[in-house]
Amino acid sequence: MHPSRRSDVPGFEVMSILAEIERLRSAGRDIVSLTAGEPGSGAPPAVNAAAAKVHAANTVLNYSPAFGIAPLREALAEHYRRWYSVEVPVERIAVTTGSSGAFVLGFLAAFDPGDRVALARPGYPAYRNILSSLGVEVVDLDCGPEVRFQPTPEQLEAEVAANGPLQGLMVASPANPTGTMVNRDQLTALAQWCRANEVQLISDEIYHGITYAHPGLSAVEVEHDAVVISSFSKYWGMPGWRLGWMVLPEHLTDAVSRLAGNVALCPPHGSQLAAVEAFSVESLAFADAQLADYAAARAMVLEALPQLGWVNAAPADGAFYVYAHIGEHLGRFADSTAYAQALLHQAGVAVVPGTDFDPVNGGEWVRLSLAPGSAAVAEGLERIGRLRA
Amino acid sequence: MHPSRRSDVPGFEVMSILAEIERLRSAGRDIVSLTAGEPGSGAPPAVNAAAAKVHAANTVLNYSPAFGIAPLREALAEHYRRWYSVEVPVERIAVTTGSSGAFVLGFLAAFDPGDRVALARPGYPAYRNILSSLGVEVVDLDCGPEVRFQPTPEQLEAEVAANGPLQGLMVASPANPTGTMVNRDQLTALAQWCRANEVQLISDEIYHGITYAHPGLSAVEVEHDAVVISSFSKYWGMPGWRLGWMVLPEHLTDAVSRLAGNVALCPPHGSQLAAVEAFSVESLAFADAQLADYAAARAMVLEALPQLGWVNAAPADGAFYVYAHIGEHLGRFADSTAYAQALLHQAGVAVVPGTDFDPVNGGEWVRLSLAPGSAAVAEGLERIGRLRA
Repeated sequence: MHPSRRSDVPGFEVMSILAEIERLRSAGRDIVSLTAGEPGSGAPPAVNAAAAKVHAANTVLNYSPAFGIAPLREALAEHYRRWYSVEVPVERIAVTTGSSGAFVLGFLAAFDPGDRVALARPGYPAYRNILSSLGVEVVDLDCGPEVRFQPTPEQLEAEVAANGPLQGLMVASPANPTGTMVNRDQLTALAQWCRANEVQLISDEIYHGITYAHPGLSAVEVEHDAVVISSFSKYWGMPGWRLGWMVLPEHLTDAVSRLAGNVALCPPHGSQLAAVEAFSVESLAFADAQLADYAAARAMVLEALPQLGWVNAAPADGAFYVYAHIGEHLGRFADSTAYAQALLHQAGVAVVPGTDFDPVNGGEWVRLSLAPGSAAVAEGLERIGRLRA
Repeated sequence: MHPSRRSDVPGFEVMSILAEIERLRSAGRDIVSLTAGEPGSGAPPAVNAAAAKVHAANTVLNYSPAFGIAPLREALAEHYRRWYSVEVPVERIAVTTGSSGAFVLGFLAAFDPGDRVALARPGYPAYRNILSSLGVEVVDLDCGPEVRFQPTPEQLEAEVAANGPLQGLMVASPANPTGTMVNRDQLTALAQWCRANEVQLISDEIYHGITYAHPGLSAVEVEHDAVVISSFSKYWGMPGWRLGWMVLPEHLTDAVSRLAGNVALCPPHGSQLAAVEAFSVESLAFADAQLADYAAARAMVLEALPQLGWVNAAPADGAFYVYAHIGEHLGRFADSTAYAQALLHQAGVAVVPGTDFDPVNGGEWVRLSLAPGSAAVAEGLERIGRLRA
């Protein structure tokens, strides 16, 4: 007996590092974790209060509709009105089990085995690993600091000329691990290229709300047929609640609905009931308040980089990561994985090696998460500096 | 732009009916829903109390390890010791986002596109719909009341002789929609056939704990290499919490772990923290107490069947469904879908047409859920009887 060939995908290294951190902490080690995109703040208090009320009342939590409870879908429609001034009918909004649930459903609904989907490298590893486990060919676009880690129509044009048509394009803005964003002109150009080439645009907007210069532009503002994927995990600090959503174009609504009812049944019901409170004035103020701390942590890291020997040529416009080139620094370490292991075990600070995000060049890069907050980042930077010395 | 070919699976009809019931109720209609496998009891109070405490304390709910938090995995290992007298190392226990999450991960890890997986028809529709969306060929075993709706080695032998090798077998005991169970001899014979034919056995044990004659036998008791899938949704009354688990054989542990870290990240963290309380003496007593009510409801339905013109030739040994042949009763209705629609809209009682579970013969069958409890079932039976009259 053996596992399937398609299960031969790399693990998501961040999840393995988290497990290692848990083991070390259980053994009494003091570890500063700058690994995961896990906001140190947690959920807005009003969301927790709503959840506490649901459970204190012994509310029977049955399956919700596959696309989520009506009040949450309505709150999301209102959210698109307020943040993006765009009208999205609730019928096109699907609440999902985190953005992870949305990726699985969206990829299954939009792509068949053998389809070719382009994405920026470096990028969130689950895109490529879910796609390849579903038989979709992942087409890497080599996006270095010179294009601020974001794909361009020229790259897509060259890829199609060299290797044939594409069926999909993943765009993430702000991106993980780099935090760079596409502006309106760039997103419009990418969307137009997709439309002209009958390519399904999927836009990961999970870091919206966490931006340092200008707010994120939603793909629904420029392309009606885009699939937008987002989540309560980042801006609202709710990763463990497993709650995300999609905005679907009409041509995918039925397919995703049928798939969702079979593949997931529904997103967590208690999380949904509580998340309605995520859109209150108080909850939005709470989420916004974390932003100032991420910004302070970001400035701190950018200032410390030269002393660490790290290079960050395209600073994050949003999200809560710094993706740094450490080529100059590797000296006694074979690659960023060895360096990250040394940081974890010798210095007690955890970062993620770039190989998780870029299987080609990631050995010279690391991702540092600002999400734990500026105090953790300050302590982490000191530990990183000590290992070097 | 168009959806993928593989998304062309039927919706899970139960989910659509639930949405329709919600619409009717919002419009002020009084509907008795005997549709979903949703226990009317809700979660054990100690589980809700634990969840309320987690949220009242504003606990930061981050990603858990991909296979779940250690205390819950340990509690599950202890559960296997107590219920089945079998030792399962925690390393082989993966907490999942409901049994749904387990099916997706298990199917991806065990089967490649083109593999052939056998299952009983009638059966839980998501098996066939997830498998086919993942490119796996679903091989129906026509299991009528004469084999108590359960597959036999003879059927498997005949299938292989006629159409070539199989790579997988799904067994569900108690089964949905029929509630029938395999005994130790039957499960052993199936497992031996699988082993001899290098077929991956997957055992759905989600209804364990809800049995009327003898307790459920776990496949891990008879076959080390089986994949066992279960959940907190049924016996513990927690469908909306989206929490299940798998017991994995060694040859699939790594594959499922890598897939889980990419596809799901982790199961809902708050649900996990609370579910540790599901194994307390009080919680188990609470869950057991529901059983008496299901048994009463089951007896009530079996007694009422002749008056309704329904036939249930193989009464449920477990779970909380009655799957009844209504061929004699269809008269003025085209099929069970038309009959179920009439029951819903004219009589205000919802059941599920058999077509959801059996695409071939389901037009003459309906599934009635006892899960809402005996009071709801009593009222439902009266409404069903009135439509006939």
